Amino acid sequence: MIYLDHSATSPPNEEVLQSYVAVSTRYFANPSSLHKLGVEANALFQQATEQMKQLLKMNQGEVVYTSGGTEANNLAILGYAKKHAHLGKHIVTTNMEHPSVLEACRELEREGFRVTYLPVNKEGQVEMDVLKGALTDETILVSIMHVNNEMGAVQDLRSLKKVIQKNSPAVFHVDAVQSFGKMVVPFGVDGADMMSISAHKINGIRGSGALFLRYRIPLHPMIVGGGQQRNKRSGTIPLAEAVALAKAMRLAICTTERAEYRQWKNRILEHVETLSQIQVVGPKDGAAHITALAIRGIRGEVAVNFLQQRDIIVSTSSACSSLDGSISHVAEALGISKEWAAGIIRISFGTTTNGSDIDRLLHALTALNEQVK
Amino acid sequence: MIYLDHSATSPPNEEVLQSYVAVSTRYFANPSSLHKLGVEANALFQQATEQMKQLLKMNQGEVVYTSGGTEANNLAILGYAKKHAHLGKHIVTTNMEHPSVLEACRELEREGFRVTYLPVNKEGQVEMDVLKGALTDETILVSIMHVNNEMGAVQDLRSLKKVIQKNSPAVFHVDAVQSFGKMVVPFGVDGADMMSISAHKINGIRGSGALFLRYRIPLHPMIVGGGQQRNKRSGTIPLAEAVALAKAMRLAICTTERAEYRQWKNRILEHVETLSQIQVVGPKDGAAHITALAIRGIRGEVAVNFLQQRDIIVSTSSACSSLDGSISHVAEALGISKEWAAGIIRISFGTTTNGSDIDRLLHALTALNEQVK
Repeated sequence: MIYLDHSATSPPNEEVLQSYVAVSTRYFANPSSLHKLGVEANALFQQATEQMKQLLKMNQGEVVYTSGGTEANNLAILGYAKKHAHLGKHIVTTNMEHPSVLEACRELEREGFRVTYLPVNKEGQVEMDVLKGALTDETILVSIMHVNNEMGAVQDLRSLKKVIQKNSPAVFHVDAVQSFGKMVVPFGVDGADMMSISAHKINGIRGSGALFLRYRIPLHPMIVGGGQQRNKRSGTIPLAEAVALAKAMRLAICTTERAEYRQWKNRILEHVETLSQIQVVGPKDGAAHITALAIRGIRGEVAVNFLQQRDIIVSTSSACSSLDGSISHVAEALGISKEWAAGIIRISFGTTTNGSDIDRLLHALTALNEQVK
Repeated sequence: MIYLDHSATSPPNEEVLQSYVAVSTRYFANPSSLHKLGVEANALFQQATEQMKQLLKMNQGEVVYTSGGTEANNLAILGYAKKHAHLGKHIVTTNMEHPSVLEACRELEREGFRVTYLPVNKEGQVEMDVLKGALTDETILVSIMHVNNEMGAVQDLRSLKKVIQKNSPAVFHVDAVQSFGKMVVPFGVDGADMMSISAHKINGIRGSGALFLRYRIPLHPMIVGGGQQRNKRSGTIPLAEAVALAKAMRLAICTTERAEYRQWKNRILEHVETLSQIQVVGPKDGAAHITALAIRGIRGEVAVNFLQQRDIIVSTSSACSSLDGSISHVAEALGISKEWAAGIIRISFGTTTNGSDIDRLLHALTALNEQVK
């Protein structure tokens, strides 16, 4: 089986799982307990947090552990906006964000916030003057994803940050769920102020993620109760998840894009040039690990099925929007014509991908092209 | 080491952890993906859900997977209230609920809801005419915990349900985090309409819990995004957690209270009768697995420390309230005098407890009594 759906979820790393199990078993006590087992558990929790902060070169700031990328995105947006509404009620985002960002923004609209959904150009990028035009003194938050999950469009976070800083008092949230571990994510003075990641997209365990705060940014908690995590996120402290996430991050983090992913992507792009019924959608110089293709005249599901009969697993545009069968909002945002937008598949690489998988994929795409001619 | 802090958290069952790891590894695909690995994962997810429903004898209704008991309690209260505000804006709860219930209620108060915090009697129970007096036609939700986490007070859910049904249109939410697996939790027509549980309190994995709905109760989601779990709780479907939770529930569920827990509790109660500086606080006929004691003239932390030097792990009143050092709100609710309220420890039994642990505990309590005389 050739698994090319790493952007939906990635197989857990064995070492990460072992770590999770070892910590769950040996350090099972509640880190908030005052007895020695609790104190020990809490020390290990602090250690995992420190490891992450070192990895991200955070001298200060905070880690907020969440149940995944969705909660991290929700917390950044709802938590920041509710806490800072007195400073302004305007949010800026784009029209191709993940649903966990878009739906959080819609919640805020129902509560009286104004949200600007920036359009993107054909490359899936926010243009700087478009962003500049949207910013006001009332803009408290800008949320823009680093790598789009469906099409692989990459934003220039450093330039976006400069425009935001010059033209508004807003903080900058970046959904880095699809980019962390695949490329460098600018985080800090010249990048994101808040950054969301998901463990299961980087070969970590399910149900785990984090929101990183560049400094002690006040947030209104979404999940309330015992006041854990400095009252930003209640619920028993997730010690084993934290240790497993620190390990998954350490294994995934990279200082450049992975060269082999770019080579594989280029092979696909070149091959598709030769196929009359298949075209590349999404930016060709987008993220190396995500390639979106459209097949003329058939639905994405049919193409997914054709490939899986050849033991190749790819997805329609995303797992999150796969069940309702509608045209992807990202395809619409990129201005992809309806003729092609229904037949989109996403090929996404990860740690288990190798060159021979790409050979098999190219053969199968040729066969698919013949089939639909 | 004698671990008597199962109400803070319980050691994970080995079989449950193995299940979690096996499913994470073999069925790692995203259950929302359309390809065969996703379909397989989704089938297993449905199967785990069906197992739970059978265990709980739910013919209909829904399971909503959450990141734990705190989120389940929040979702029941915030999710139900926000969705049904047009029917009334009155909530009834008690003054000794878990912080995840009380803080959710305080959020609602800030949003214009009225919340009645019922007092409890000396036994820690809500009296029926007190409840009846609080209910109105505007009361949309009653949330009462089954077993109090600090003192072990048990509510008579069946009688409460009758009073609620006769006197209001409210649905009945029960925080069963401390009772599930220790005793029978009335759920259904003659009990809870919504029930919260936490996996790690029943030897399951961390970061996992559920809210069970007796019928298809509409809820406003707390975590929004891809619309998973019938739009009640977004985020990648937690397959491995669901399978592990189903297993933990199957291993924990019981049809009567555990006889040995009652015997051990009675041994402690009888022994403490002979000690001048230690008394039982909390109801003597409360939950068998939780016993709260107060030591005159010292703080709970000191007693915890004394016992752990003898390798016995107990907690102060609860893990959630242990770090701020204030007098427990539950001790206040039960009318425990200040002289005793500062020195409370909680002894809680679980699957690894045995009779010789109790022998050692009783010896250590004698020594503690001598120490503080």
